[in-house]
Amino acid sequence: MPGFQTIGVITKQSGPQIADTLQTLLDLLASRGLRVLLDESTTPLLGPRAGETFSREALAREADLAIVVGGDGTLLNAGRTLADSGVPVLGINLGRLGFLVDVSPEEMASRLAEILDGDYVEAPRFLLEAEVWRADKRIGQALALNDVVLHVHEVVRMIEFDTFIDGQFVNTQRADGMVVSTPTGSTAYALSGGGPILHPGLDAIVLVPICPHTLSHRPIVVRGDSHIEVRVCAHNKDPAQVAFDGQAGMNLEPRDRIVIRRKHNPLRLLHPKGYDYFHILRAKLRWGEQP
Amino acid sequence: MPGFQTIGVITKQSGPQIADTLQTLLDLLASRGLRVLLDESTTPLLGPRAGETFSREALAREADLAIVVGGDGTLLNAGRTLADSGVPVLGINLGRLGFLVDVSPEEMASRLAEILDGDYVEAPRFLLEAEVWRADKRIGQALALNDVVLHVHEVVRMIEFDTFIDGQFVNTQRADGMVVSTPTGSTAYALSGGGPILHPGLDAIVLVPICPHTLSHRPIVVRGDSHIEVRVCAHNKDPAQVAFDGQAGMNLEPRDRIVIRRKHNPLRLLHPKGYDYFHILRAKLRWGEQP
Amino acid sequence: MPGFQTIGVITKQSGPQIADTLQTLLDLLASRGLRVLLDESTTPLLGPRAGETFSREALAREADLAIVVGGDGTLLNAGRTLADSGVPVLGINLGRLGFLVDVSPEEMASRLAEILDGDYVEAPRFLLEAEVWRADKRIGQALALNDVVLHVHEVVRMIEFDTFIDGQFVNTQRADGMVVSTPTGSTAYALSGGGPILHPGLDAIVLVPICPHTLSHRPIVVRGDSHIEVRVCAHNKDPAQVAFDGQAGMNLEPRDRIVIRRKHNPLRLLHPKGYDYFHILRAKLRWGEQP
Amino acid sequence: MPGFQTIGVITKQSGPQIADTLQTLLDLLASRGLRVLLDESTTPLLGPRAGETFSREALAREADLAIVVGGDGTLLNAGRTLADSGVPVLGINLGRLGFLVDVSPEEMASRLAEILDGDYVEAPRFLLEAEVWRADKRIGQALALNDVVLHVHEVVRMIEFDTFIDGQFVNTQRADGMVVSTPTGSTAYALSGGGPILHPGLDAIVLVPICPHTLSHRPIVVRGDSHIEVRVCAHNKDPAQVAFDGQAGMNLEPRDRIVIRRKHNPLRLLHPKGYDYFHILRAKLRWGEQP
Repeated sequence: MPGFQTIGVITKQSGPQIADTLQTLLDLLASRGLRVLLDESTTPLLGPRAGETFSREALAREADLAIVVGGDGTLLNAGRTLADSGVPVLGINLGRLGFLVDVSPEEMASRLAEILDGDYVEAPRFLLEAEVWRADKRIGQALALNDVVLHVHEVVRMIEFDTFIDGQFVNTQRADGMVVSTPTGSTAYALSGGGPILHPGLDAIVLVPICPHTLSHRPIVVRGDSHIEVRVCAHNKDPAQVAFDGQAGMNLEPRDRIVIRRKHNPLRLLHPKGYDYFHILRAKLRWGEQP
Repeated sequence: MPGFQTIGVITKQSGPQIADTLQTLLDLLASRGLRVLLDESTTPLLGPRAGETFSREALAREADLAIVVGGDGTLLNAGRTLADSGVPVLGINLGRLGFLVDVSPEEMASRLAEILDGDYVEAPRFLLEAEVWRADKRIGQALALNDVVLHVHEVVRMIEFDTFIDGQFVNTQRADGMVVSTPTGSTAYALSGGGPILHPGLDAIVLVPICPHTLSHRPIVVRGDSHIEVRVCAHNKDPAQVAFDGQAGMNLEPRDRIVIRRKHNPLRLLHPKGYDYFHILRAKLRWGEQP
Repeated sequence: MPGFQTIGVITKQSGPQIADTLQTLLDLLASRGLRVLLDESTTPLLGPRAGETFSREALAREADLAIVVGGDGTLLNAGRTLADSGVPVLGINLGRLGFLVDVSPEEMASRLAEILDGDYVEAPRFLLEAEVWRADKRIGQALALNDVVLHVHEVVRMIEFDTFIDGQFVNTQRADGMVVSTPTGSTAYALSGGGPILHPGLDAIVLVPICPHTLSHRPIVVRGDSHIEVRVCAHNKDPAQVAFDGQAGMNLEPRDRIVIRRKHNPLRLLHPKGYDYFHILRAKLRWGEQP
Repeated sequence: MPGFQTIGVITKQSGPQIADTLQTLLDLLASRGLRVLLDESTTPLLGPRAGETFSREALAREADLAIVVGGDGTLLNAGRTLADSGVPVLGINLGRLGFLVDVSPEEMASRLAEILDGDYVEAPRFLLEAEVWRADKRIGQALALNDVVLHVHEVVRMIEFDTFIDGQFVNTQRADGMVVSTPTGSTAYALSGGGPILHPGLDAIVLVPICPHTLSHRPIVVRGDSHIEVRVCAHNKDPAQVAFDGQAGMNLEPRDRIVIRRKHNPLRLLHPKGYDYFHILRAKLRWGEQP
C-alpha cells in the first residue's frame, strides 16, 4: 500500500473548538505534503484562508482517505455519502469520545501519523438501504448507518403494523414504533428502546419494538442478508412516519410498506491500532473498568 | 340509601353494537320507572326516538348515577367531567372487557339490577390535575384519569427535562418522554413504557421514562400527595408536547413547567359485587388462569 | 426533647477503617459526656480498651439512640432487632455512601453534633413480617427491612407458585423466583430484577418476578397494609427456598405458604438535616447531576 | 437421495401418551419396511414387545435419521449426543408444540410420509462447546444446544465475574449470573432474563446478564465464531456454579474460567416442509395471529 495521498476533510457545521482542531489537522496534513480536499462544510469555519473546497461527491471520488471531525452524528452523515465510493473514513472527535469518532484532539497528532503510515484497523460497518412503497410505486428511498425508525407521529398514539422477514409474516404490533438497526445503531436509539448490543463485527440486523402494547413482544435479531418489510396496517388510524439515522423522514399512509435490506458496500471505517470496542462501550455506558 | 333515581347515560360516539346495547339499557331503566338523562352524545345514535338530552354538566349535576357505555376511553373521557360532581359512574362495555368498563352486554341485565338495588362495590379512582406554566403565567391546565405524558414532538429526537418531587431535584433526563401516571393509568401507556402495575387501591403516582438515554433510569413510584414538577430544559432544542389521557395536548417551549398534583375529588367508580381486579388483569395481559 | 443521653454503638464485624472510625466516634461521644453502650460486635475491634458491652437486646432497651457504623447491610441487620424497641437509628458509613448509612466519616463530627442537638430528619422505614406455613403449622418466621425472596434452589430450574393479595388470587407464575420488597429494598435486589424505585415515604410493597417464564408478568405495587401470600404449587418439582434480607433462609416444599405483612412498628431511621434521598439515588445509580 | 432406510427412535422416559404415540410411530415405520433402532430409553415403555435396542452411540452411528418423541428437553438431550454423528433429527411432540419438536401426533402420519420421501426442510442448529478450567487444568467440559449458564449457587447472593470476547476484556459484572446462549436457546432461559430473540438462521451467540447489579448492563450479541471466556473473580465470595442446557453442572471456585466456543458440527434438525419459525414463535409467546 503506497499510503494515503489525497485526504478529504469533512467537519461538523458549527460549535466551539472545531476551528482549532480543524486548523491543527490541516497543519499536520500540510507538514506531510499531502493534498487536502476541503468539504464545502469547512469553508465557513476557515474563512478566507480556506483552500480548495469540493462537493461531497467530488471529495468522495478523489480522496484516498476521508477524515471527519465532529461527533458520531457528523460521521453518520458523511458515512452515508461515502460508502459507495469505497473511500476509508477516520473520525476525530472534539473531546467527547464517540463510537465512530474515537480519535481525540489530544492524540490526533500521534494517531494520525500512524494511520497515514498504514498502521490502523479497518472495521467495515454496513448500511441499510430502505425504500418506501405506496401501492406499486416507490415513493422514497434512503440510506441509514444506524437505523430506520417507524414511529407514530403524534404523542400517545399507537400505530399498527405487520412485519415480514424474507417474506414470512412475523407479527402484527401495536406500538409507538419500531427500530430496525444495524450493529452500529444498536448502541443508539435501539438501546434506549430495550434492544441488545450487537457487536460491530456481527452481520445482523435487530428489530426493536418501541413501547409495544403486547408485553411479550421482544427485540428480534436476524441475519444481515434478511429482506425486511414493515407494512402499516390498512386500518391504522394515527399518522405514522419513518426516519433514517434520525433525519426527518416521510409521512406514511395505511398500506405503505418500508422495505429494508443491507447495502452491498459497507462504510470502510478506520480506527487507530489497538482499537478496543469494549473500552468505548464501558466508557459510554458507565460500566466502570475492571476493579 | 334510597337507591338511584335519576340515571345519566353517556355513550361512545359511534361504532357497531352501541345502538343495540344502548336501547336494551334504556328499556331496563324504563322498566324500573327510573328517570333517564341522555347525554348529548347519545342523540345521534337513538335518532328521533331520543328523549330528553342534557349537556354533560347538567347531567353531572342532576344524575344520581352515570352509566357509560363504550370502552375504557369513553369512561376516561366521561370520568374527567364527572369527578367533581361526585356522581358515581358505572361502565358497560360492548363485548370487550375493559379495566374500567367491566360489565358486559350479556350480564348487563342482572348486574344492573343488583347495582340499582344498592349491591355494588365502590372503588374510587383519583385523577391528576396538571398545569402548564410559562415563566410566571399559567398557559394551560387539564385533568387526567390515566396519565400526563411529556413527549418529544418529532420522531427520533430527544427532549431534555428536569424532574422535581416536593421541590427536591430528582434528575435530568434525555429521553423520548416521561409518563406521569395514576394507578388507573399504570396498565395503559405507562406499562408499555416499562412501568410497574399499581394496584388501584394504592395512593401513589408513577413516573416512567420513555426510552431514556441513560440506561439506569427507572420508573419511580411516589406518594399520591406528591407535588410533581417537570421542567423542559432551557437548552432543549427539539419540540416537546404534553398530552392528558392521550388527548391532543399543548406544545412546550424551553423552560416551560408542568406541575402535577392529585385532584382532591376522586372519580367514584362502581363495579358489580364480586369485582376482581386481578381477574381483569389476567385476562387483559394474557397471564392465563390457575392451572 | 431533652436530647439523647445514652448511645448504643453497633458495628460491622470486620474490615479496614472500622477501628479508626469507631474510635473517633467514641471520642466524640465521650467529649459530650454521653453514656455509651457498646454492642457485643464492637469488642473484638476495640480490644482490651473496650468498655461496657451489651447484648443487642439490652442495648435496644436502654439506648436513646443507636449509631450503626458500617454499610447498608450492617444497618439492615441492626434495624431488624431495633425496630421493636422504638430506638432511633443513625448510620455512619466507612467512606462508601449507602442508602441507609448516609453520614460519611469526614462529616461525622459536625453531623453528629447537630443530631445530638436534636437537629435531624426522622424517616421511618417499615419492615415486613414473614411467616412460613406447612399445612396448618407455622414452621418459621422472620423480619425483613429490604425484602423477602422466594427463589429456586438450584441453577436453571424454575419454581411454580401462586400469589394472593388480601385473599384474591393474582396469578400463577413459573420463574426463578419473586422478590417482595419494601420501599427500602426497592433499590436493592428488586431493582436488579426489573422493579421500580419506591420512594421511602411511600406506604407500599412491590412484588417483582425474577426471570418469569411468561413474558407479560410485571412488577406489581400494592398497598402497605396488604396481606400477601405466596404458595409453592403442589406439583412444583424443583427445590425452592426463601430468604429474608438476603440471609440464609429456609427450604420450602410443595404447598408451603409464605405469608407477608407490614410490621406495625417501623424502624425510626435518622438522617442529618438537609437529607436528600434523590441525591443518594443519583450517586448510587450514576445518573449524574444536573448539567 | 436414496431416502432414509434406518431410523433411530428416541423417547422421553415417562409420561402419559408416550406409549401410544410411540407405537403409532413404530407401526408407521414398519409399514414402510424400514429398519428401526430403538434407543435404550424406549424399552421400559414398550415392554416385552420391544425389538432391537441400541445404545445412543450405536444408534447415532448406524441410523440415517433419528426421530425424537417428547418435548424440547428430550430433543436437547438427544441433540447433544447426535450432533457429532451427522445424523439428521426430527422431533415429534406429545401434543404441546415445541420450538424443536414441531410435528404433532395428529399430523405425524402425513408429515412423516413426506419427510421419509425426502420432502423436508433442514435447519442446522449449532451447539456450544464449553470447558471449565482451574489454573492450567481443564476440570470439565460439556456441550450445550441451548445455553451455558453461570449462576450463583445460593439465593440472594451475587457473583462477580469478568467476561472476555476474543481475548478482549468486556466488563466486570456483579449479578445473579449470565446466560451464554445459541439462537436455539434464545427463546428459553435467556429470554426470561431479558435477552433478544435470535433467529435460528443467525450465526451468533448472545450473552445475557441475569439481574445485574449495574443497571446499564445489557445483552450483547457476538459472532458465532467468537471465543468467549468468563472468569470468576479472585475475590468472589459466594459459591458459583455452571450448568449446560439446564443440566446439573459444576461448582466453581474463584479464578475458575469457562471457555465457550461454537462446536464445529451443528445438529442437523429437520422440519416438515412449510416450516414457519415465526408461527411457532407467535404461538409460544402468545402474540396472536394477524387480525
